[in-house]
Amino acid sequence: MQMKLAVFNENRLGVVQGDRMVDVGEVVGWDPGRVQESLVRVMERFAEVRPAIERRLEAGGSQALSEVRLRAPVPGPSKIVAAPVNYVLHQQEMNIASTVEGLGFFLKAPSSIIGPGETVLLPYRDRRTDHEAELAFVVGRKAKDVPASRAAEYIFGYFALMDITVRGKEDRPMRKSFDTFTPIGPWIVTADEVGDPHRLEMELWVNGERRQHANTRDLIYDCYRFFEVVSHVMTLYPGDIVTTGTPEGVGPIAKGDVVRIRIERIGEFSVNVDEK
Amino acid sequence: MQMKLAVFNENRLGVVQGDRMVDVGEVVGWDPGRVQESLVRVMERFAEVRPAIERRLEAGGSQALSEVRLRAPVPGPSKIVAAPVNYVLHQQEMNIASTVEGLGFFLKAPSSIIGPGETVLLPYRDRRTDHEAELAFVVGRKAKDVPASRAAEYIFGYFALMDITVRGKEDRPMRKSFDTFTPIGPWIVTADEVGDPHRLEMELWVNGERRQHANTRDLIYDCYRFFEVVSHVMTLYPGDIVTTGTPEGVGPIAKGDVVRIRIERIGEFSVNVDEK
Repeated sequence: MQMKLAVFNENRLGVVQGDRMVDVGEVVGWDPGRVQESLVRVMERFAEVRPAIERRLEAGGSQALSEVRLRAPVPGPSKIVAAPVNYVLHQQEMNIASTVEGLGFFLKAPSSIIGPGETVLLPYRDRRTDHEAELAFVVGRKAKDVPASRAAEYIFGYFALMDITVRGKEDRPMRKSFDTFTPIGPWIVTADEVGDPHRLEMELWVNGERRQHANTRDLIYDCYRFFEVVSHVMTLYPGDIVTTGTPEGVGPIAKGDVVRIRIERIGEFSVNVDEK
Repeated sequence: MQMKLAVFNENRLGVVQGDRMVDVGEVVGWDPGRVQESLVRVMERFAEVRPAIERRLEAGGSQALSEVRLRAPVPGPSKIVAAPVNYVLHQQEMNIASTVEGLGFFLKAPSSIIGPGETVLLPYRDRRTDHEAELAFVVGRKAKDVPASRAAEYIFGYFALMDITVRGKEDRPMRKSFDTFTPIGPWIVTADEVGDPHRLEMELWVNGERRQHANTRDLIYDCYRFFEVVSHVMTLYPGDIVTTGTPEGVGPIAKGDVVRIRIERIGEFSVNVDEK
């Protein structure tokens, strides 16, 4: 079932094959006017619709990836759940004693999502706003009280996420929920294609200079343990986004910057930065 | 346009008239399988559908309110935005220096919503979990960067909300987002029927004993100023819930309790409490 699922151009559903994009919307009943709802339906029926997708891929007919416009692959989750401090070296640079165990987790507003190539808008000229590179995943099945040992069954696929953050004293949901503060992409890579999500190199560059570089093996609460913590508190629905926290190297972004994120086995994308 | 809009029985849309409920779903194209989407459509087209609703009310045919089961009137917002410390006396009892100005706001997970008569499930036996009575409203139109002076144009209606909260050190979104932690009801009262939202008596009882009693005139950030703060950060969508914070008198709830909330000109409802 290994597959990269993308939303592209006028909210079409595509499958990425090498440097080509194949439009598979028609064979799964994709509605470009209801992207999130269509995505949930595809995930819930993935085993069932997969043969039709594969026949479509074999039939040929594709566009160059360089010529399509990628969109946010999960544009309207019912929630975005995020880990606050989840890499040891980032914990040290932030000088915070607690991790998920003490801080729990927070929520970001779904209205903050943007896609590859879009622009992060800085709300303040006198406050520091940082990039944070993160591994995120999309929930594939309704989940409640799922132990870490079974979490993988509920994770449909992975993607890269930037948790853009204004530094300061306010509650995290506010400082991290400004419109444009959650760039995601470049597409969803199904869990089986990612393999072990805890041995992925992750990098983030600002204007070509690498600022963050870590491996997901250093997560304090890995994807599955974090899933257990979250699903103990609340029901996760198909299409919900969970993001696992950022490693060391966070730093400010400014007008005119180009920020690029890359995660091994997943892919890369960049966004621009401007002032609001 | 003064009206009380309720969701009842098998997710029907009703209008409350005194002690009667009139099913008006048919005249507005209500889909009980898509309550939130139907509600947004009704709010966006309210001026247009109102004559049909009024003709339906004149035609007669209703049920006793005491014989219907009320449901959460806004079951699936894209976000729930909440003020952390927004009454002076509550600020004192919590011993917190900051208010909205310093703390910003937080988010609650939409999956925590329940309706009147449902049951709050306490997740811990060894941690204090509190009731918090709040005045909430539902956004009627897409809103961004709306000044307080124009906020009223974007608020469709008001209802009562209990912000159930585990006390402790974790981020608010976690401590307030357990499933069942956001009882709302009893229905949506349109803004014009509420009149001035800043002179409403609000009360909360546990097992018949009044624990909270305040007037919304004592809000530090009133509905409109809070709307301005929130819409400066993020786009609010029709159907989103904003809740304004709780006054003094918060206290623990326990298995077997019945918690009742009443807000003047809006109505009242109660929920039960059990252990998870």
